[in-house]
Amino acid sequence: MSICAIGADLGGTSLKAALVRRSAGIIATVRMDTGADHGPSHVLGQICHAVRALLAERPQADVRGIGLGAPGTVDLARQTLIHPPNIRSWGRIDVRAALRERLGTSWPVVVENDANAAALGSAHYGAGRPHASFIMVTLGTGVGGAIIMDKEVFRGTTGAAGEIGHMTINFAGPIDRAGVAGAIEAYIGQRYLTEHARNHVQAEGSPLLRRMAGSDLAALAPAMLSEAAIQGDAAATAILRWAGHKLGCVLGACINLLDIRVVVIGGGVSGAGEHILEPARQAVLEFVKPGMREGVTILQETLGNEAGMLGAAHLVFDHADSHGSTSGDI
Amino acid sequence: MSICAIGADLGGTSLKAALVRRSAGIIATVRMDTGADHGPSHVLGQICHAVRALLAERPQADVRGIGLGAPGTVDLARQTLIHPPNIRSWGRIDVRAALRERLGTSWPVVVENDANAAALGSAHYGAGRPHASFIMVTLGTGVGGAIIMDKEVFRGTTGAAGEIGHMTINFAGPIDRAGVAGAIEAYIGQRYLTEHARNHVQAEGSPLLRRMAGSDLAALAPAMLSEAAIQGDAAATAILRWAGHKLGCVLGACINLLDIRVVVIGGGVSGAGEHILEPARQAVLEFVKPGMREGVTILQETLGNEAGMLGAAHLVFDHADSHGSTSGDI
Repeated sequence: MSICAIGADLGGTSLKAALVRRSAGIIATVRMDTGADHGPSHVLGQICHAVRALLAERPQADVRGIGLGAPGTVDLARQTLIHPPNIRSWGRIDVRAALRERLGTSWPVVVENDANAAALGSAHYGAGRPHASFIMVTLGTGVGGAIIMDKEVFRGTTGAAGEIGHMTINFAGPIDRAGVAGAIEAYIGQRYLTEHARNHVQAEGSPLLRRMAGSDLAALAPAMLSEAAIQGDAAATAILRWAGHKLGCVLGACINLLDIRVVVIGGGVSGAGEHILEPARQAVLEFVKPGMREGVTILQETLGNEAGMLGAAHLVFDHADSHGSTSGDI
Repeated sequence: MSICAIGADLGGTSLKAALVRRSAGIIATVRMDTGADHGPSHVLGQICHAVRALLAERPQADVRGIGLGAPGTVDLARQTLIHPPNIRSWGRIDVRAALRERLGTSWPVVVENDANAAALGSAHYGAGRPHASFIMVTLGTGVGGAIIMDKEVFRGTTGAAGEIGHMTINFAGPIDRAGVAGAIEAYIGQRYLTEHARNHVQAEGSPLLRRMAGSDLAALAPAMLSEAAIQGDAAATAILRWAGHKLGCVLGACINLLDIRVVVIGGGVSGAGEHILEPARQAVLEFVKPGMREGVTILQETLGNEAGMLGAAHLVFDHADSHGSTSGDI
C-alpha cells in the first residue's frame, strides 16, 4: 500500500487537512475553524485536532508525517512560521517542535508558505503535473505566486521568493495593500477588481450584474463576474478581459526574468476560465521579448482548495525520499 | 602555480580575450576587431587568433580550456550560440566543436550569454564576490540582466533567464527595441536615456551639457551625463535621478519575485555611480513588499570590461572542478 501523509492548509478563517495517499491523492479530509483570534496556542491545538481526527478515521494508514501550508513567511529550514497575517500575536513559532510536542510524535513536520504549497500540489497532482517548471499564480483576496523549477519550489535567499502579487506593472499606478504602486494586486486582487467592476458597471451598465449584486452593486464579488461572463454579459466579459490583460503584463515580466514559460493560474478568480485566461494569453506575448515567446502556455488549475493540502503532503513524501524511508513505495 | 583559462568576450565590434589565472585574475589580454560583417567563419577565426596570441605570450601557462561570453542565446549545454545580434548570418553554431576543430584541441570550450558571463565575473572576481546570490544589471546600449543563485547562473528552462531589460514597469509606456511596452530598456537603454536627456536639457537648459555635446546636443552620450553630474550640473543630476528611479522600479519587481536582495550594477551608464545608484536605492524600497526590504543592497561593479572575460574563464575552472582535474589548485 502507498504511504500516506497529512497535508494541512491553514487559512485565516478555516483549517483544512487531508490524509493524502502518495499515489492516489486525498483519501479523507477534515475542516475546522482556525480560531485565529484566540491566538497561536489555540490554532496549534486546532491543527492537532485535525491530525487526530484524520488518524482516527483511517487508523490503518501508513502515515509518515505532517505538511502544513500557511500564509506568512516560512524559514529556510521549513519549520518556523513567521508573522502569518490574520493570526493574532503569532510572532515567530517553531511549528515543527510545537506540533511534535503536542502530538507526542517524532514525525517529520514540514512547513511551507501557502502559495508554494499550492504550487507543489499543482506540480505533483494538478495542472502542473506534465511540467518540470512553471510559475503559479493564485488569484484570490490577494495575488499569490510561486516558482516551481525542476519540480521544486524556488525559494530565493530567505524562502520568500514568488511574491508576484507585489510586482509593479505601472510605477505610477494605484497602491496595493503592501504600499507598492501599480502592483498587479492593485489591479486584480479581489478588492481592487471588485472596485474596478463596480465603476465599470456604473458607467456601462449591466442589468445581470445588478440583479446578482444588488442595484447598488454592494454585494459584487468576482464569482459573479465569472457567472455573468459565462452567461454572455458584455460588462462582465469586458471587466475580465481588462483583468486578463493586466495578468498578462506581469506574467510577461516574470517569463523574461525566469525563462519559465508555463504558467498555472489558480484561486477563486481563475474560475472565470477562458474569460480571463484568453486575454492573458494575448497580452503576455506582447510583454515577453520575441526570442522567448515559443512555448509560452497559460493553464488553469482545477484542483481548487485541494492544491494546498496536496502540496503540503508532498513535502512529507519528498522529505521521506531524501531520508531513505520510502523503499517499496509507489 | 595556479591553473589558467582563456576567457573571451565577443562583442559586435570588438573581441576581447584574456589569459586568466584562477587565483590572481587576468594576467594577459588581447583585443581585436570582431569583423562581424564578414560572417561566422571569420569571427571564429578571430577567436582562434586571440587564443593563439595569448598562448604565444605565455607559453608556460597551464591552460585548461576556453570560455566565451557572447550576445544572443546559448543552449543549455553551453556549447551552441544561437542568433547573436550583430553577427551576420550566424544562425546556430556549435562553437565548442568549431573551436576545437580549428585549434586542434580537445580542451573544454564553454559558451555563455554575455550578461551571464559578466555576472559570473562579478561573483568570483568583482563586487559580487562577498555574496552567494545577487541580481546583475548591465546598463549599456541595452539593459542586460543575470541571476546568480548560490554562485551559479540561474538559467531557466532554456538558458535565457535574466532578461531584465525587457521587463515592463509601465504597461502603457514607451516601446523598447524588442517591442515591449514600458520595458526598463525603453527608459534607460542608451538610446532612450539619451533621448530623455536631450528633451530635459532642451526644456530646462544646461550650459555644461551643451558645451560637451554640441549646442544641438547631437553628440550627447551617457558618459557626459555622469561627467556633468560629477561636476554638479543640475540637469545631469536630475536626468540620472530619473533613470535611477526607473531602475529601482524594475529591481523592486525582481526582488519580489526572486527574493534575491543584492543587486550589482555594471555597464557604462553605471559609471555615474551614486548619481544613479542612490535614487535607485530610494525607489527600490517603495517597490518591494515590506517584509522583504531587509538587506536590500545595490552595489556598483568596478571590474568594467573585464567582468565578461573573467566570468567566461570561470566557466572553465568550474568545468574542471566538476570533472576532477583541478587537484592541487589554489
